[in-house]
Amino acid sequence: MTSFIDSGQRFRLTDPTLAPNAASYLWNRKMMIQLSARGYAVSQYMDPEPRKYAHVPTIAAQTFMQPEQDYFPHHPGRFFYIRDNETGDLFSAPYEPVRAKLDRFSFEPGVSDIRWVIEKDGVRVELRLDLPVDDVAEIWSVRITNLTDTKKSLSFVPFFPIGYSSWMNRGGHFDAALNTIVCTSVTPYQKVEQYFKNKGLKDITFFAADRTPDYFEVAQVAFEGEGGLHNPSALQDGGHLGGGDASYENPAGIMQWDLTLGAGASEDFRFLFGPAFDKAEIAALTERYIKGALEPVRQDYDNYIRSGLGSLELHSPDEDLDHFVNYWLPRQVFYHGDTHRLTTDPQTRNYLQDGLGMIFIAPEKTRTAILKTASQQFFTGKVPDGILLRPDTELKYINQIPHTDHAVWLVIATKAYIDETGDREILEEKIAWTDSNEEATLYEHVTRALRFLAGEVDDRNLPYIAQGDWCDPMNMVGYKGKGVSGWLAEASSYAMTTWADICRTENDSETADWLAQQAGKLNDSINRYLWDGAWYARGITDDGVAFGVQADKEGRIYLNTQSWAFLAGAADDAQKASMLQAIDDQLDTPYGATMFAPAYTAMRDDVGRVTQKWPGNGENGAVYNHAAAFYAASLYHIGEKERGFSVLSKMLTRPDAQDIKTRGQLPLYVPNYYRGAYYQYPRTAGRSSNLFNTGTASWYYRLVIEQLCGLRGDGEGVIIAPQPPADWETFRFTRIFRGATFEVRVDRDAEAETPTVTVDGRQLESNRLDRIETGKRYDVLVRLPK
Amino acid sequence: MTSFIDSGQRFRLTDPTLAPNAASYLWNRKMMIQLSARGYAVSQYMDPEPRKYAHVPTIAAQTFMQPEQDYFPHHPGRFFYIRDNETGDLFSAPYEPVRAKLDRFSFEPGVSDIRWVIEKDGVRVELRLDLPVDDVAEIWSVRITNLTDTKKSLSFVPFFPIGYSSWMNRGGHFDAALNTIVCTSVTPYQKVEQYFKNKGLKDITFFAADRTPDYFEVAQVAFEGEGGLHNPSALQDGGHLGGGDASYENPAGIMQWDLTLGAGASEDFRFLFGPAFDKAEIAALTERYIKGALEPVRQDYDNYIRSGLGSLELHSPDEDLDHFVNYWLPRQVFYHGDTHRLTTDPQTRNYLQDGLGMIFIAPEKTRTAILKTASQQFFTGKVPDGILLRPDTELKYINQIPHTDHAVWLVIATKAYIDETGDREILEEKIAWTDSNEEATLYEHVTRALRFLAGEVDDRNLPYIAQGDWCDPMNMVGYKGKGVSGWLAEASSYAMTTWADICRTENDSETADWLAQQAGKLNDSINRYLWDGAWYARGITDDGVAFGVQADKEGRIYLNTQSWAFLAGAADDAQKASMLQAIDDQLDTPYGATMFAPAYTAMRDDVGRVTQKWPGNGENGAVYNHAAAFYAASLYHIGEKERGFSVLSKMLTRPDAQDIKTRGQLPLYVPNYYRGAYYQYPRTAGRSSNLFNTGTASWYYRLVIEQLCGLRGDGEGVIIAPQPPADWETFRFTRIFRGATFEVRVDRDAEAETPTVTVDGRQLESNRLDRIETGKRYDVLVRLPK
Repeated sequence: MTSFIDSGQRFRLTDPTLAPNAASYLWNRKMMIQLSARGYAVSQYMDPEPRKYAHVPTIAAQTFMQPEQDYFPHHPGRFFYIRDNETGDLFSAPYEPVRAKLDRFSFEPGVSDIRWVIEKDGVRVELRLDLPVDDVAEIWSVRITNLTDTKKSLSFVPFFPIGYSSWMNRGGHFDAALNTIVCTSVTPYQKVEQYFKNKGLKDITFFAADRTPDYFEVAQVAFEGEGGLHNPSALQDGGHLGGGDASYENPAGIMQWDLTLGAGASEDFRFLFGPAFDKAEIAALTERYIKGALEPVRQDYDNYIRSGLGSLELHSPDEDLDHFVNYWLPRQVFYHGDTHRLTTDPQTRNYLQDGLGMIFIAPEKTRTAILKTASQQFFTGKVPDGILLRPDTELKYINQIPHTDHAVWLVIATKAYIDETGDREILEEKIAWTDSNEEATLYEHVTRALRFLAGEVDDRNLPYIAQGDWCDPMNMVGYKGKGVSGWLAEASSYAMTTWADICRTENDSETADWLAQQAGKLNDSINRYLWDGAWYARGITDDGVAFGVQADKEGRIYLNTQSWAFLAGAADDAQKASMLQAIDDQLDTPYGATMFAPAYTAMRDDVGRVTQKWPGNGENGAVYNHAAAFYAASLYHIGEKERGFSVLSKMLTRPDAQDIKTRGQLPLYVPNYYRGAYYQYPRTAGRSSNLFNTGTASWYYRLVIEQLCGLRGDGEGVIIAPQPPADWETFRFTRIFRGATFEVRVDRDAEAETPTVTVDGRQLESNRLDRIETGKRYDVLVRLPK
Repeated sequence: MTSFIDSGQRFRLTDPTLAPNAASYLWNRKMMIQLSARGYAVSQYMDPEPRKYAHVPTIAAQTFMQPEQDYFPHHPGRFFYIRDNETGDLFSAPYEPVRAKLDRFSFEPGVSDIRWVIEKDGVRVELRLDLPVDDVAEIWSVRITNLTDTKKSLSFVPFFPIGYSSWMNRGGHFDAALNTIVCTSVTPYQKVEQYFKNKGLKDITFFAADRTPDYFEVAQVAFEGEGGLHNPSALQDGGHLGGGDASYENPAGIMQWDLTLGAGASEDFRFLFGPAFDKAEIAALTERYIKGALEPVRQDYDNYIRSGLGSLELHSPDEDLDHFVNYWLPRQVFYHGDTHRLTTDPQTRNYLQDGLGMIFIAPEKTRTAILKTASQQFFTGKVPDGILLRPDTELKYINQIPHTDHAVWLVIATKAYIDETGDREILEEKIAWTDSNEEATLYEHVTRALRFLAGEVDDRNLPYIAQGDWCDPMNMVGYKGKGVSGWLAEASSYAMTTWADICRTENDSETADWLAQQAGKLNDSINRYLWDGAWYARGITDDGVAFGVQADKEGRIYLNTQSWAFLAGAADDAQKASMLQAIDDQLDTPYGATMFAPAYTAMRDDVGRVTQKWPGNGENGAVYNHAAAFYAASLYHIGEKERGFSVLSKMLTRPDAQDIKTRGQLPLYVPNYYRGAYYQYPRTAGRSSNLFNTGTASWYYRLVIEQLCGLRGDGEGVIIAPQPPADWETFRFTRIFRGATFEVRVDRDAEAETPTVTVDGRQLESNRLDRIETGKRYDVLVRLPK
């Protein structure tokens, strides 16, 4: 297995054509940017809703992030042309738009920056992008070095296209006092009230340099000419930029310097790019990030990122896994939990699961997410489809479609939070409801959510699906008000059992018994109406048709209804064996277990949107990693640790070069899906969505910590029960848990018949340590049978 | 003056780089396509709302047509690569995406087709686009000729990109039975009800050939590779297309034939491109337009277009003007009136003015438009903002913003229709109201519209502007309900005077007198509150501030409030002189009179949207041709015929090469604007919007016919009063009027002291012929003093 991991948490890709969409991302609480190895960029910031400051060259739809986004030469990006003034030869760093054959290319994203090293004809270009912690701005550092032993005359031309910002008004000019290209626009409005909303928007995009350019241009068309971006007319025949403005033309930040570099000499530049409200804001930002020292800014941002790198350090036989788990995975969890995916109305299930991941990083964030969710709950107990993070926002897109599963996640997040932190006090927090000022404890909120869920069932005691539940947009199964969800029946059962635990420790045996009874009733219904002979059906439509069953040609078996049956304890041993076999036979692929199979190839009116998605992508039979993570969780839950680890491994399968090419994916993050339909559409199976927004990250991290490493909270104590795969002879990890540090070493021992746990030299009677002392360091040795 | 006009109504552009956005357009009642000389295309069709079947490579916003649209290499287009298989040299016809230096380039749009002739290295490529009359489909004919006297081995590769059709589902495959690349997609939906709406959409785009391709490709990325569209990887090193499909990838219609052409030999191809619901529809369309004979299809379409070429044939000293007036101008009028700009909810003022133009082409269309408007009028008399052409559509975009001027256009259109046709019976047509089944005559409808208008005034008797009136989106002048419109006061006065004429001929002197009195009162108020000392103010804001006045630094003088003061008869001679001087000094530019000046450079909260548009473009101080046409009309109205003709001429100023370059405009149509702000932003002044949707065309045609040629209806008779510019020694025209043919010759006569009109050898006592005999041919000679 070839590793793409360099030392020091830095990945390296050395051929820009190998993985055309390979990208890394940086963010702070106000913005994010995804940069491809080739130089293309997707960036957005909060103003207060998500917005772009660099655009495609036409009017783009305002929409959510798209999977498998294609780039094209006029896509937004950050490009740096270098022309040899003697030969006229032109190349661009990092790779686009010239696409010259480079002597060296190295894309090197780190956890808190993105870097490249490019060499061509004796010139080295080093690029580095940093973000500040608190502002929306890209800080670009560029070093140009003459690698030869003779003098070089070069022209250096950064090119930052701004694109089509507004049909109403767009342009740009060079501001000499600021050394900045200021691109103005006016966000269009038609209704008067929109005008007042738009008034405060940052309608400027600026491109500032740390020195006066020798030449500049603002209208992209004047730069590009007939030559095109790969060979701009303005740079042909030793040309220099014309110094024009852009007037209702697509603007760009384009500057030019003629450099004379002696043998081995280099020159450094710094640029700043981002949105602004006015020139005063540009002046303030350039003061801070162009004139000010860069090192403290980098240090601050690195501190910010490292504050989110979690509470686990793994040292396993697999170095790549270690790197991923120690840096890139918690980084992805932190991004989700700290920024809420940079939306103002996260889906409730996302908000809670992103919050759940934070129990290992900043549990106070989890606490806030749980309490905020409860505060937007209805008095009936119903949990809303989305959580409004600002008073001036509203539910958008999919949050306008009624889904029925949100209560489940409130239970799961609250239980996970208490297990990790031991903070039972949260249950006593008093919170009002979105439609009532009457206050109730969180305990009551969650319990009432489950009571509401228990009431939304048909006469078979199966829960209505309405227009969808989690992760499969089957919006037409139950839109007439009759269809039911098999998955939600299982998830409800699991949530009730889970919450019954809490009720018991709260000494509320009445509620606990009621929940246990309800869970039992659900399991009965599940087995009575949904067991199809070899696996569980996904649901029953408005017209009474069970689907996800053997009789179906497409969508025959769904992963979620098997995984969650394991979690819900609905399946007996014979059923489990049958289900596992069916999963292996029908869902498993080299890229993981698909969410269902075969993928739908045509619309099923009684299933809905999922069947209209492209077969094998998105939710139509793809390897949906969030579902795969729950499959892994359910496998650990029933003691299938080898299978569980195998599922986790496949999500990270280190692709070989060929795989990179087809998957466009470096393992900097778990993407939300890989294309499925492996048997139907083999050419494209395994492709990555290239989207890093996914609840997968939280669950992956949790499984590594609580199942693979096996150190998890249990009331006042902690359970230490590592479950390494059979081929790990030994491994160790450090875990911060409730303020104590656990140094755990796990060894195989040919002598051991059962696992033993030794803490600070003293062997425990079980795998449970009853009390933990804050600030203490525990030295733990676990011996496992071979 | 260099003419770009070829013989036979065909324009010719011989350098693709001269006018980067030069384009022509074809349409039928279901679709339209605008094709640039370089090969880029914007096309849309009704399904039933306007929709595209070829897309940009990202998710585009669904929006109205944009002015000064920029093209870029991945913009939709229709391209044909030719590779010399011996040398490997590649070029593409018509010009993009390779942009090779061609030996010959000729873009030759005709009134009913679009053609090119391209030559490069001994190969000629002739392209021709035809449309059918009744279907949505592009029929492409291609002839490839070896111009040398040795055999040539060529590869011919048409490339029709489809772009990003849907995030939900997109792909494509080659259907061998149909010789067609079938690109499928599913229009996204989130709400269930949208699904049922989308179900009938034509989600397929197909590209069919008249023979089996030797090779094909469907995924654009596979074709393009690292080479890029200007040098596709698939065509490098003698390569052939790989025969793949597109699976959640942007598809394209790409086929390849290897041709061996003897000396002088040629080969013909035919292709069909467009949307379809299913393969059965593709089969039907290919049967009709690929397998069927092409000549009758071309003939039918040519007949359709020629049926709209109007009722005037001009032979003036200016051949270019003749061509424009005889072919391209009525063609543009016909497009508007026959298709209603391919929208389902035209703005009422557009709908009526487009209808008005049809009085010279197909007056039954005007009749329908007038009656349909009346049928959607409110019982109060209020005329709605937009007209719904289908029961299943709704008012969109700007039609949701309350404007106050629509009644004016109902009067003007009805009067023009009756003057041209003599069809007074239309006044007796009984029509209900949109909110009442009670029927009333059209006469009552129009009268009531004016009564409503007369009531919507403040205590100065000036009409409220609400959120806007015609052609200046000053949506914040009166949004609080107090601001008034100077232009609308004048337009109301003019409309009332106009309608009073009709009332008198209907012997309704009571209404006529009331209207005359109202018009007089309005003129009094106009002079009392809006005369600023040298010209008329544009209006008074909610807060009582007059604007468009000498005290203003920006938006100091508005053209419309001067033109319409002339039409309304509000200005005395001294005022007129002062206004004309102010227009000459402040509004006139080489590209025409700007709508106001100076253009706003910053927002005025009390004016609104117009001030946020780009200075000099759109409605912010541009040469808005529709307003310029009314300026011309008002000049003829007050007897300023030389000025009037000068205004018309400037709208068509034949640009020299330099001008084409900056204006991107061939005179195939009057665009809706040229950029203004001539003194503020000289670099971009004069640029064309490149949009052919504009009420200008109707008015231009009407002014040519009724003022320049001067032959216009008057009750039962016709007035013959040509007003040629002073430097026309002689001219002649043929005009069909109420079924009679007028052959008119106009001569300057040094002897004549006053104009004389001789009809069939008999000199009239005045310039009026009292009765017209249908079917008769009148031989008219007009003698004008020198």
